[in-house]
Amino acid sequence: MKILFVGDVVGRTGRNALSIRLGRLVDRHEVDLVVVNGENAAAGFGLTLDIVREFFDLGVDVITSGNHIWDKKEIFEHLDREPRLLRPANYPPGLPGRGSGVYSTAAGIPVGIVNLEGRVFMNNLECPFRCADALIEDLRHQTPIILVDFHAEATSEKVAMGHYLNGRVSAVVGTHTHVQTADEQILSGGTAYLTDAGMTGSLDAVIGIRKELAIERFLTQLPVRFEVAKKDPVLCGVLFTIDEDTGRAQAVQRIFEKIEQ
Amino acid sequence: MKILFVGDVVGRTGRNALSIRLGRLVDRHEVDLVVVNGENAAAGFGLTLDIVREFFDLGVDVITSGNHIWDKKEIFEHLDREPRLLRPANYPPGLPGRGSGVYSTAAGIPVGIVNLEGRVFMNNLECPFRCADALIEDLRHQTPIILVDFHAEATSEKVAMGHYLNGRVSAVVGTHTHVQTADEQILSGGTAYLTDAGMTGSLDAVIGIRKELAIERFLTQLPVRFEVAKKDPVLCGVLFTIDEDTGRAQAVQRIFEKIEQ
Amino acid sequence: MKILFVGDVVGRTGRNALSIRLGRLVDRHEVDLVVVNGENAAAGFGLTLDIVREFFDLGVDVITSGNHIWDKKEIFEHLDREPRLLRPANYPPGLPGRGSGVYSTAAGIPVGIVNLEGRVFMNNLECPFRCADALIEDLRHQTPIILVDFHAEATSEKVAMGHYLNGRVSAVVGTHTHVQTADEQILSGGTAYLTDAGMTGSLDAVIGIRKELAIERFLTQLPVRFEVAKKDPVLCGVLFTIDEDTGRAQAVQRIFEKIEQ
Amino acid sequence: MKILFVGDVVGRTGRNALSIRLGRLVDRHEVDLVVVNGENAAAGFGLTLDIVREFFDLGVDVITSGNHIWDKKEIFEHLDREPRLLRPANYPPGLPGRGSGVYSTAAGIPVGIVNLEGRVFMNNLECPFRCADALIEDLRHQTPIILVDFHAEATSEKVAMGHYLNGRVSAVVGTHTHVQTADEQILSGGTAYLTDAGMTGSLDAVIGIRKELAIERFLTQLPVRFEVAKKDPVLCGVLFTIDEDTGRAQAVQRIFEKIEQ
Ligand SMILES: [Fe+2]
Ligand SMILES: [Fe+2]
Ligand SMILES: [Fe+2]
Ligand SMILES: [Fe+2]
Ligand SMILES: [Fe+2]
Ligand SMILES: [Fe+2]
Ligand SMILES: [Fe+2]
Ligand SMILES: [Fe+2]
Repeated sequence: MKILFVGDVVGRTGRNALSIRLGRLVDRHEVDLVVVNGENAAAGFGLTLDIVREFFDLGVDVITSGNHIWDKKEIFEHLDREPRLLRPANYPPGLPGRGSGVYSTAAGIPVGIVNLEGRVFMNNLECPFRCADALIEDLRHQTPIILVDFHAEATSEKVAMGHYLNGRVSAVVGTHTHVQTADEQILSGGTAYLTDAGMTGSLDAVIGIRKELAIERFLTQLPVRFEVAKKDPVLCGVLFTIDEDTGRAQAVQRIFEKIEQ
Repeated sequence: MKILFVGDVVGRTGRNALSIRLGRLVDRHEVDLVVVNGENAAAGFGLTLDIVREFFDLGVDVITSGNHIWDKKEIFEHLDREPRLLRPANYPPGLPGRGSGVYSTAAGIPVGIVNLEGRVFMNNLECPFRCADALIEDLRHQTPIILVDFHAEATSEKVAMGHYLNGRVSAVVGTHTHVQTADEQILSGGTAYLTDAGMTGSLDAVIGIRKELAIERFLTQLPVRFEVAKKDPVLCGVLFTIDEDTGRAQAVQRIFEKIEQ
Repeated sequence: MKILFVGDVVGRTGRNALSIRLGRLVDRHEVDLVVVNGENAAAGFGLTLDIVREFFDLGVDVITSGNHIWDKKEIFEHLDREPRLLRPANYPPGLPGRGSGVYSTAAGIPVGIVNLEGRVFMNNLECPFRCADALIEDLRHQTPIILVDFHAEATSEKVAMGHYLNGRVSAVVGTHTHVQTADEQILSGGTAYLTDAGMTGSLDAVIGIRKELAIERFLTQLPVRFEVAKKDPVLCGVLFTIDEDTGRAQAVQRIFEKIEQ
Repeated sequence: MKILFVGDVVGRTGRNALSIRLGRLVDRHEVDLVVVNGENAAAGFGLTLDIVREFFDLGVDVITSGNHIWDKKEIFEHLDREPRLLRPANYPPGLPGRGSGVYSTAAGIPVGIVNLEGRVFMNNLECPFRCADALIEDLRHQTPIILVDFHAEATSEKVAMGHYLNGRVSAVVGTHTHVQTADEQILSGGTAYLTDAGMTGSLDAVIGIRKELAIERFLTQLPVRFEVAKKDPVLCGVLFTIDEDTGRAQAVQRIFEKIEQ
């Protein structure tokens, strides 16, 4: 079976790219489940209810997220109500939402999805490694097919997570840096791994943001207000082929699609 | 003309990979100039005089580096004496060494090389963007062919540097994260760009370090002593084809070579 | 001669404290010059034109600031026009405003004021030590009386600056942590030093912010919106007595005033 | 009853200061229990068995620590064996040692001591607030007298902890910044609070380290090797007077003692 994972969708540019290309990708690759990281979908910062619905209407099965999920307050109550919308599991107890779930493909195959956030250069969260241990042990009672979106900054933390979960999950894919890495591989235990899926949004930009503004922030160190860039949209992601009986990855293929405007 | 850039060489594993594969790559691609980032070549931390000589004997033309260049004190005097060994240019004034130079290919083509370090999540250095302005203006009086090794952590800072230098240099290649990115491209002004060249060392590892030790550090938060990993050596880098009259990039090709042991 | 320095004024609570107590302090201590850090005066974040005027009406001679000075865009043009309003000098070139100046007491004594920002755990600025060298050399041609407001997080960077400028300025006072330190001293070269002047605002709070909100941010790691606290206002600062002929400090006295509401 | 808390002892200079002055302080103030933060006692980095014994011989009852406790490997086994030696409680599970305990004064009064570490600008640990909740609830079954050493960098995190534990413990004292703060107070619920106890070591230094070396590191950004400074030793700490029946603080007094050499 095949899972298509789409990296951080940035603003309207990214949403348009998803809207234009998702159906074609699903058809071409006979995708069984679509997971999209949506933490930047609302003008670059967070998610709204309308965008969540838009994603589901496009055929997205599960939305993962990251540190920006908390940017728009209106999403908080939806995090509690909508099981197909995840936020990193290793935030402190008591917060809205959940960080994992089991979802079903059209053919009825159960798939576990886990969303975690790194701590290096990021928020002060609970240990993502131990959090993964607990969630995965639980999910494995329900299905051997498990995908982890590890939303993290440092390559060391992401690669370490890949090795740490090797043999226990079907795939570990990183998000957050918005630049796709070229290190897709299947680790010794059958876990597919990619350090970062990349971003879905404008390529003629600084990780989806208007490049003039990003450069200005670096040059001035002032709190420049960021805006989503529009030119040269791309869809970045990764396609995992997984043995549905064992949960072992059979193939991992990076997706990088330029969208004709 | 062609420049081969090789990403951070990690310890003996990386040096062996370089030794085994560099000659073949140079021959196969008819490389005119070889630039190697060597900041991790001495057991993962810094460089020694012996390793510098070893690199030059292998056919390396210029060694760039990064934050780890200062780890071994013995290299300090060599930084002053050896023009083919660079350290990031934007360290404070008064330090040993230099951050740029002009080098000649066998055919006598002059090539400018610039080494810079990012500031996001790293050291408190001088502005790498302004430092680039000054160095590049100077180098362009000597040659239109200029390559920049931007040793930085944050993708945003690296991508911003690519756009900032677009049209002024032949290539901007990032180092430091040790994971090769898949975003090679030629920007509108003729500048080839890749966010990170990746690492030359053990792939069955956490960015070149023994994976058990890296995972232990994440799990315990203790100051675990790192050791270079040995298994599954790879050579990561990027090959730039540059118009020698204009300095514009004509092609950019990622290099990822598994080394048979 | 005597300089009264008042630590970061936080919101209306801090402005009220300043308004109630400044005149009395000036009279009691026969203060010749009043310097106030105002980076948090506008609802905790930045400064407005109205507040700048309010401060000058209260008898403030010079306003210093820090990282929050850029929070309210309306202040930018005033930074260019108003020489009595400083922002840290070591921001990149080309920004609005200035980081130092020479001001005159009522008796006509010239006093140099320098505002710098630290880099440890803060913004990526130019080296505050080298920036201090240049500014102080220039100011010393105009007056031997120089006060430095070093707005920084890490005690190590602040104490290092004190020793670095020892013998070259009359006083180095730290700001930014909002907690007054107890290490007032006159260093060997005649430079008065205090690591942090503390904050002017609500003491029944977390560095001036409503304590419930600050605690909530630590507990949840969410982007909680901060509000200025109101209870138990205090005015924190430090009084420097300086020999007006030599510029050497003769006394340094911490000020901690509870304001009756 | 009275608890004397002594701030981070730095190297031999700090140990000598403690040796010279501790007995006199205990006598003068009729101290019932002595708690000393020893994380920097071994040449500035960590603790050795010999120093632990030396401290106990001097009359220290409990040693707390912080991020540097892990610097000397030889202390690891002693952390497991010696109940009077604490390390921050909120490190991950499975590490050597403990972060709290109940100790008895000569008169047989039980006193709970808790050691925690902050996360802002520090290690990625478990939530110190929640960890405090659990430990304190447990300790309060054994004694109403509880002191917390919160080893943290950011004033915001430390002040927040003071308010968070207000009414539940006798005292919260911060360590780690090595500069004593002047904000000693008894909070509304009877909890004595001081943001930082300061350091015991050389005052003519940068937080205990030779000032030339610390300044060099800031100026060069190189990994300068630090050495403990010797001149002008001081002992910094705080004296808490606590109602032994209720555990409420009755007085809090900063200690700053210059040691004649
Ligand atoms: Fe993102
Ligand atoms: Fe993110
Ligand atoms: Fe490296
Ligand atoms: Fe590096
Ligand atoms: Fe402030
Ligand atoms: Fe500040
Ligand atoms: Fe310490
Ligand atoms: Fe510490």
